[in-house]
Amino acid sequence: MTDQARYDTAIDAALDRLHEEGRYRVFHDIERRRGNFPHATWRRPDGSERPITVWCGNDYLGMGQHPVVLDAMHDAVDAAGAGSGGTRNISGTTVYHKELEAEIADLHHKEAALVFTSAYIANDATLSTLPKLLPGLVILSDELNHASMIEGIRRNGGAKRIFRHNDVAHLRQLLEELPRETPKLIAFESVYSMDGDFGPIDAICDLAEEFGALTYIDEVHAVGMYGPRGGGVTERDRNVHRIDIVNGTLAKAYGVMGGYIATSAKLCDAIRSYAPGFIFTTSLPPSVAAAAAASVRHLKTDQSLRDQHQTVARILKMRLKGLGMPIIDHGSHIVPVIVGNPIHTKKISDRLLEDHGIYVQPINFPTVPRGTERLRFTPSPVHDPRMIDALVRAMDGLWSHCALNRAELSA
Amino acid sequence: MTDQARYDTAIDAALDRLHEEGRYRVFHDIERRRGNFPHATWRRPDGSERPITVWCGNDYLGMGQHPVVLDAMHDAVDAAGAGSGGTRNISGTTVYHKELEAEIADLHHKEAALVFTSAYIANDATLSTLPKLLPGLVILSDELNHASMIEGIRRNGGAKRIFRHNDVAHLRQLLEELPRETPKLIAFESVYSMDGDFGPIDAICDLAEEFGALTYIDEVHAVGMYGPRGGGVTERDRNVHRIDIVNGTLAKAYGVMGGYIATSAKLCDAIRSYAPGFIFTTSLPPSVAAAAAASVRHLKTDQSLRDQHQTVARILKMRLKGLGMPIIDHGSHIVPVIVGNPIHTKKISDRLLEDHGIYVQPINFPTVPRGTERLRFTPSPVHDPRMIDALVRAMDGLWSHCALNRAELSA
Ligand SMILES: Cc1ncc(COP(=O)(O)O)c(C=O)c1O
Ligand SMILES: Cc1ncc(COP(=O)(O)O)c(C=O)c1O
Repeated sequence: MTDQARYDTAIDAALDRLHEEGRYRVFHDIERRRGNFPHATWRRPDGSERPITVWCGNDYLGMGQHPVVLDAMHDAVDAAGAGSGGTRNISGTTVYHKELEAEIADLHHKEAALVFTSAYIANDATLSTLPKLLPGLVILSDELNHASMIEGIRRNGGAKRIFRHNDVAHLRQLLEELPRETPKLIAFESVYSMDGDFGPIDAICDLAEEFGALTYIDEVHAVGMYGPRGGGVTERDRNVHRIDIVNGTLAKAYGVMGGYIATSAKLCDAIRSYAPGFIFTTSLPPSVAAAAAASVRHLKTDQSLRDQHQTVARILKMRLKGLGMPIIDHGSHIVPVIVGNPIHTKKISDRLLEDHGIYVQPINFPTVPRGTERLRFTPSPVHDPRMIDALVRAMDGLWSHCALNRAELSA
Repeated sequence: MTDQARYDTAIDAALDRLHEEGRYRVFHDIERRRGNFPHATWRRPDGSERPITVWCGNDYLGMGQHPVVLDAMHDAVDAAGAGSGGTRNISGTTVYHKELEAEIADLHHKEAALVFTSAYIANDATLSTLPKLLPGLVILSDELNHASMIEGIRRNGGAKRIFRHNDVAHLRQLLEELPRETPKLIAFESVYSMDGDFGPIDAICDLAEEFGALTYIDEVHAVGMYGPRGGGVTERDRNVHRIDIVNGTLAKAYGVMGGYIATSAKLCDAIRSYAPGFIFTTSLPPSVAAAAAASVRHLKTDQSLRDQHQTVARILKMRLKGLGMPIIDHGSHIVPVIVGNPIHTKKISDRLLEDHGIYVQPINFPTVPRGTERLRFTPSPVHDPRMIDALVRAMDGLWSHCALNRAELSA
């Protein structure tokens, strides 16, 4: 076998594994039209098109088409051009970045904030840099934490303990096994995006206090959507002062792109100075920073969007439950319907798209554990009653047609 | 000591180290004005402002203010809104992303391309995923490779060998020590951004062929600027067919944001399917993808910008050399002036900024090795003779004033 053939064979094998397990991902080409969300156009691989309704986006509030956001974006392109032209250190820090950081620090009542190109990088860079700043640090991490947190915790091979999902008794046990003087950080999420359940924030903070641990929360699926100013679950529950580091995204409810941490001025300064993922990359375009800042600012007052969002989510869950669909309902805005098998999940998703113009991507391993493959619906204020009707009817028909169980796996 | 005090002390210690070594980074707040590059406004911490000329940006060709790029950006905001609304797999793949990938694949004469949120992530995600696809892979890496490549290579603790910078004899020796059947990848850059020297592409490809290794090249500081269509040094030297994976950025010469790899369709498919840094993050905003595609497309034909760029760089180097400045000149567009000490470098940079309105950020460890701290000038087609004059005169005065050596460290 030639060298090239050996490399090809190995790569083929990796791809074959995905096909065999039925979890090879096909990206659908989606055109959202401003002013028309959640309507969009699906372009098939053969170039033909079909109008669809997007039911799986993470632009949870439709801010990606909000005039306040688009105006800020246009204005900054006109004022400052396209890219930032540099890393944050080398000519890439602008007034837009500073203003965005100030807006975020205020949002979470923290001294400072640091903006990264994504929340993925914010998690990865921060969690991989903390052990350099706090020698001997042990990170206690919820087993269902997002891939970006896992990657950050693993990156430099630092010490870690994994606690069972939301299991504070298990967390306590792990904390008890560590010497008091060992620096510790508890990393968890406020809303787990695939089940839509909430982290036990106060109980975790109690343990952190008792054992002298720092707290790190990923509020990616909560910022903009919870709390009277969109400060997330920790604002709603008034416990953000108990959290040392808040992580959030500008790409979901805020509808743009970018991620951040909000924490003490000192810690921001240290992460800024030591994290390769922050230092060695071009900063966000001024227009992206401006649009994000406008969105954060807007959602500090627009409570009605948050209310509508929750209402639409409640209605969708009620209707699907009424049909006996195996949905998971923890009272958040995320509506997962468990299918439990990657091939069925893909089949239902394909039928919804082709026959009904309803776009919901199948969610497979490694995004969720095997055996819990699902459709994950993300209702929003721009989904109206007609669209909900159409979705519910389509699901009902498909469930019967495929003879799928009802309510069996629901939590 | 309380727990909080212990954490604070550790973080203080980390920050103190930077201050003591004189390499604490102060980000300057810079406002570039579209239509006015490289002129900009520096906003001091006290809020006062000073007009400046940016001499350290990486928007090498001024594409960040090119009408073709800005029009594409505006149009896509109007058509598709602000953010993409999802990860590439979950509703975040648009026609803009597809077109950008097609444009890039064509640029490098490869079957396919994969766009990431940055070249940092493209390097990190690809190099950390390849060992999963090619079990037993050994990565041979140039010692001066960019932080993002180093992070990727290290991330999963895969096997690696570091060869001395551009030293093909050393690389050969390391290759000889490995069994023939061991999968190997040689990772290097075409233009090293801090010295501006070129990698020995053909010599490395010869070794790769002889030893059956794959080749990975970072063309971040070359794409758009070298080769008749901006395909980088591998296009200029007609050896891109010898390279398995090309990495590039959309944030420097192309003036926007984002990064990519271009390679075989099969390998793109595998990286797309297995790399957490690609999978678990929101895709680029449609407007960013559209602007980047417009820039790539434009620079496939606008040779005059590339010619002007090289001319301005040659003039600046000639003038600085004429004064006996210790510049490094390897014939690329990057003009590093070695100062060799972080405190002096910062002092000169501060004086240039305050007294002359010339902005060039000091470059310190870990961006460059200790003892080689420098000012790194990035001339561009938008820097005119008057600006060059002003820079050269200011440098001459400062060099005399500070009694710095001339031409001592130049290569
Ligand atoms: C829990 C969680 N954290 C972080 C991220 C990363 O956010 P971003 O898209 O800004 O990279 C995501 C999803 O993308 C997520 O679901
Ligand atoms: C050699 C090299 N590779 C990769 C990168 C990362 O590029 P990006 O800014 O797109 O993340 C940089 C600089 O930022 C670089 O200098």
